[in-house]
Amino acid sequence: MYKYLDKIKSPSDVKSLSRAELNNLSAELRQFLISSVSQTGGHLASNLGVVELTLAIFRAFDLPQDKVVWDVGHQTYVHKILTGRRDRFSTLRKLGGLSGFPKTSESEYDAFNTGHSSTSISAALGMMKAKRLKGEEGFVTCVIGDGALTGGMAYEALDAAGAEKENFIVILNDNEMSISKNVGSLSKYLTRLRSKPTYFRFKTELERQFMKIPRVGRATVKFLKRIKDTFRHLLTPKNMFENLGFTYLGPINGHDVKAVAHVLETAKMIKGPVLVHVVTKKGKGYELAENMPTEYHGVSARKKSAECCGSMFKSYSEAFGSALVKIAEKNEKICAVTAAMLEGTGLKEFSQNYPDRFFDVAIAEQHAVTFAAGLAKEGLKPVFVVYSSFLQRAYDQVLHDVCLQNLNVVLCIDRAGLVGEDGETHQGIFDISFLSHMPNMTVLSPCNFDELEEMLVYATSVHKGPVAIRYPRGNMDFVYENPSPFELCKADVITKGKDAAIVFSGHMGKIAKEAYDILKEKGKQITLINLRTLYPLDENHIKEILKDTDVVLSLEDGVKRGSIGELLVSILKDTGKKVIIKAHNNGIVQHGSAKELYKISSMNAEKIADDILSKIGE
Amino acid sequence: MYKYLDKIKSPSDVKSLSRAELNNLSAELRQFLISSVSQTGGHLASNLGVVELTLAIFRAFDLPQDKVVWDVGHQTYVHKILTGRRDRFSTLRKLGGLSGFPKTSESEYDAFNTGHSSTSISAALGMMKAKRLKGEEGFVTCVIGDGALTGGMAYEALDAAGAEKENFIVILNDNEMSISKNVGSLSKYLTRLRSKPTYFRFKTELERQFMKIPRVGRATVKFLKRIKDTFRHLLTPKNMFENLGFTYLGPINGHDVKAVAHVLETAKMIKGPVLVHVVTKKGKGYELAENMPTEYHGVSARKKSAECCGSMFKSYSEAFGSALVKIAEKNEKICAVTAAMLEGTGLKEFSQNYPDRFFDVAIAEQHAVTFAAGLAKEGLKPVFVVYSSFLQRAYDQVLHDVCLQNLNVVLCIDRAGLVGEDGETHQGIFDISFLSHMPNMTVLSPCNFDELEEMLVYATSVHKGPVAIRYPRGNMDFVYENPSPFELCKADVITKGKDAAIVFSGHMGKIAKEAYDILKEKGKQITLINLRTLYPLDENHIKEILKDTDVVLSLEDGVKRGSIGELLVSILKDTGKKVIIKAHNNGIVQHGSAKELYKISSMNAEKIADDILSKIGE
Repeated sequence: MYKYLDKIKSPSDVKSLSRAELNNLSAELRQFLISSVSQTGGHLASNLGVVELTLAIFRAFDLPQDKVVWDVGHQTYVHKILTGRRDRFSTLRKLGGLSGFPKTSESEYDAFNTGHSSTSISAALGMMKAKRLKGEEGFVTCVIGDGALTGGMAYEALDAAGAEKENFIVILNDNEMSISKNVGSLSKYLTRLRSKPTYFRFKTELERQFMKIPRVGRATVKFLKRIKDTFRHLLTPKNMFENLGFTYLGPINGHDVKAVAHVLETAKMIKGPVLVHVVTKKGKGYELAENMPTEYHGVSARKKSAECCGSMFKSYSEAFGSALVKIAEKNEKICAVTAAMLEGTGLKEFSQNYPDRFFDVAIAEQHAVTFAAGLAKEGLKPVFVVYSSFLQRAYDQVLHDVCLQNLNVVLCIDRAGLVGEDGETHQGIFDISFLSHMPNMTVLSPCNFDELEEMLVYATSVHKGPVAIRYPRGNMDFVYENPSPFELCKADVITKGKDAAIVFSGHMGKIAKEAYDILKEKGKQITLINLRTLYPLDENHIKEILKDTDVVLSLEDGVKRGSIGELLVSILKDTGKKVIIKAHNNGIVQHGSAKELYKISSMNAEKIADDILSKIGE
Repeated sequence: MYKYLDKIKSPSDVKSLSRAELNNLSAELRQFLISSVSQTGGHLASNLGVVELTLAIFRAFDLPQDKVVWDVGHQTYVHKILTGRRDRFSTLRKLGGLSGFPKTSESEYDAFNTGHSSTSISAALGMMKAKRLKGEEGFVTCVIGDGALTGGMAYEALDAAGAEKENFIVILNDNEMSISKNVGSLSKYLTRLRSKPTYFRFKTELERQFMKIPRVGRATVKFLKRIKDTFRHLLTPKNMFENLGFTYLGPINGHDVKAVAHVLETAKMIKGPVLVHVVTKKGKGYELAENMPTEYHGVSARKKSAECCGSMFKSYSEAFGSALVKIAEKNEKICAVTAAMLEGTGLKEFSQNYPDRFFDVAIAEQHAVTFAAGLAKEGLKPVFVVYSSFLQRAYDQVLHDVCLQNLNVVLCIDRAGLVGEDGETHQGIFDISFLSHMPNMTVLSPCNFDELEEMLVYATSVHKGPVAIRYPRGNMDFVYENPSPFELCKADVITKGKDAAIVFSGHMGKIAKEAYDILKEKGKQITLINLRTLYPLDENHIKEILKDTDVVLSLEDGVKRGSIGELLVSILKDTGKKVIIKAHNNGIVQHGSAKELYKISSMNAEKIADDILSKIGE
């Protein structure tokens, strides 16, 4: 079916291909990617952009002896296709199927698990040092995007690697994009670098001449390095990477396999750290994705039929974005901060309506939080909108800069709870545990879009001190009649029953209600409670609303350790009640649909009903 | 008593001083610092280094309308002395006294609370943006050391600030030191920058000429900026800060008040971001501190008499360092990683004996952890030694890179629990809560030096997966006869009694034993348990060792939310036992002696005994 792709049995098979064969193979890889990802869903644009780069890496390095760490990792589909996983591509991001990210457990060709941004240089440097200490040969390299390079830890790693004596190659995959358009001064700087390829052309031309002579390669490079050291800083100013100790090679057209492979071969011969600057086009070869890389960054699987959705919004992100725009119209103290997630978090309209109050700080969650703390210190109302698993990057800033100073920073935590297909690195299941042990912190969780808006109004206008509102990916919601108005630390008791109480957090209301219905069918009378304020809990209020039931089940979309369930147990410890904690027992929740994963965590309605029945029966 | 210092009633008083008066004032400030800090203890060398810089800032800016954010903040003693707090300096770092760090609650001259490294640029940028959005005038600046500049979030902030249109001044206080000697390529780069002051001299000379003409200042600067933009990149290459969008002014002798003030005045007139590079000498003016800045970074209060210490080591840090050297001799897979804390963590001998296996990565905790993950991925046994409160900076890396991959990284967490005098930003009271909700993580805590060594042997030779060993500042220990050998997830039952059980974590053994003695005196029979493995807990084992007592008190040096105490309650919830959780109820623990602070947290022996008695009596 695929004339060229079918011939690739192992990565080394690409080494012998001619330029024409490489072009054909690239075309087939794109064809395969487009048809496969449109079925399974996944990251399309970034993978289309690295087809040639992946091939070049396979030519220049000997995998799996040599190691390649892909930063973020969602651009490793081509790598996976070429390392024996093509036949399983229809299982991508499905339960038990291929992960959308590198997984060392999946293949010996995957060197290090990635998922969050900006980790690759540190990991690769550690692996390289380990190899040398063990006396092993072989290269360890990493591929990092220009977006990921804005993350502070990438710079910490450049600082460390720049002082390195051993050969160490960092490949900068510069596609001028994070997920959204890049911002910040680094981005501007890279634009300038891209526009000045003069020196490198001069250098490679020289090199090409010398390389023609067999066995002179290494000497050539030494020679080049010497002339560089002697003359170059007189000719061209050092760039930022050179200032940090790197030999800089680039910029190179990332869609020319042979050119990239050639430069990588050169880089391998240089002592000390090398940065290879490769320029690629996100979405390359697929017109729609090229023109709209943000929209095609991640695509959803084709739906057989449109899913029903009883609201005017498709997701909490949309509902949030719309509510914030409305609120900000009346309150000019409100600012929005995002770390390169303009579209994903629903902030597009806000950014257009209030450009002065909108801050996209690039992939820099740490800076985002302390920057927001600065805004708050001077009396504004910053709202930092961030995915739960990425907020982990700013744990210390939330604690040290926001909470200890009790500043009015609002954290809007999107993708809280299970995200499904992105898997273990992206599940937003730690935020309840880590936020609720921070002083002065308040954590709220809405069970539907209206509640989200109500909480957002409260957080931006009434609340003093830090407050987090957590809501899930998608539109999992539970709407019920006559909800009480939101009040801090007051739960909403939806139904009263004597047999047991289900206390749910936010979007888990949907599953709680299903369990309620099952139990009702069996004649049980259940108290159903929408907790709303997850932390802090008002002990007296909690004891009061639970006083009539001996069995209490707590349900939240987070890890069990440090859960609100544990806190409830602690509050109710001297009451003699039987408390069941429903939360994720294991912090490693694989990829799959959220529905499947809730079931694996025993957090589906049937299991909840069973657990309650068994306790009632005791 | 102090001829010049006595005259300073407010910061603006320094504006009118002559060069000679400034010199005399500086000398008096040093005299005061040395005599005062040697009595109270505190950060000496860094404060001696910024005497003139502080005066220059007070000349160039109008505090408190203008704001200065001091990174890390332990170098604000001069600032405090000159802003009305001199008469309280004898209370420095004492309970209820002056904090050793900026505190907005202490003075309107303190703009933002700092403590951890690398936060100042983000905070100041946020404050500046807020001022502009509110339509307010005034400058917001920050002072960041070259050490703190290695922290990734500082770079995130430079990236954001570099694209700024408004005036924004970052003062780089370059003393060629973190707490230890600086490492990494940035450090080397700054050395090169320091050695090339040509351009700036040329520029200031021009400026000086123009500045003499009244009312031409602003025009001068515009002119200079124009000639810079037109010619300068032809003359001198752009430096790293310029590449990121900053106007670079420097390097300037940081001990010349007038020169620094002059450059700051110039910086105030420049549109967009400015980096003022000031070179200072840590410990300036105090011979001992100048020659040994690391040793004099922080000094302890003079003791009336030598404290008794029943061990060969003065601290857990020393005991750790000695043990690691011993273990590493037999196991060459062991590596040590530190983030600029060579001396503080006891790694000096290791670094000398095993330079190849020792990695000081500068103030870069995030990189440190993922770098260690890389070492572990390739089969080595990295030990990252870090203060508890600084490990917070690497929360995501521990979770995402180490725990999700279940890598053999050993975290040795020094300064776990209360650190005392450094106060709320440095108390190591969150690590139990945040580590114990991470998958695959094991947390150990020794109650004396021998146990620390035993756990270290176990962690580096037997354990699979991530493991943390937490131990306190200083030498708080509890030695008892016939301890059982260490075994994972097995607590050591020291005494058995029917009335109540005290389950303690690590160094809290000392207080637990005191409580035990009080209760014994009152005729109560107490089970005393050294928990050793704080997480995970073996539920059956816990239930077994506690089966004979109805009252259980859990004692740990961490915050209550997410504590092991809460976990114990959860494990024992269906047993009907009365469980008392002793932990810090409030995550904000001020500065003072540890002993005073344990009492404030109701974690002293008397209170523990009382709590148990009241439950036994029930």
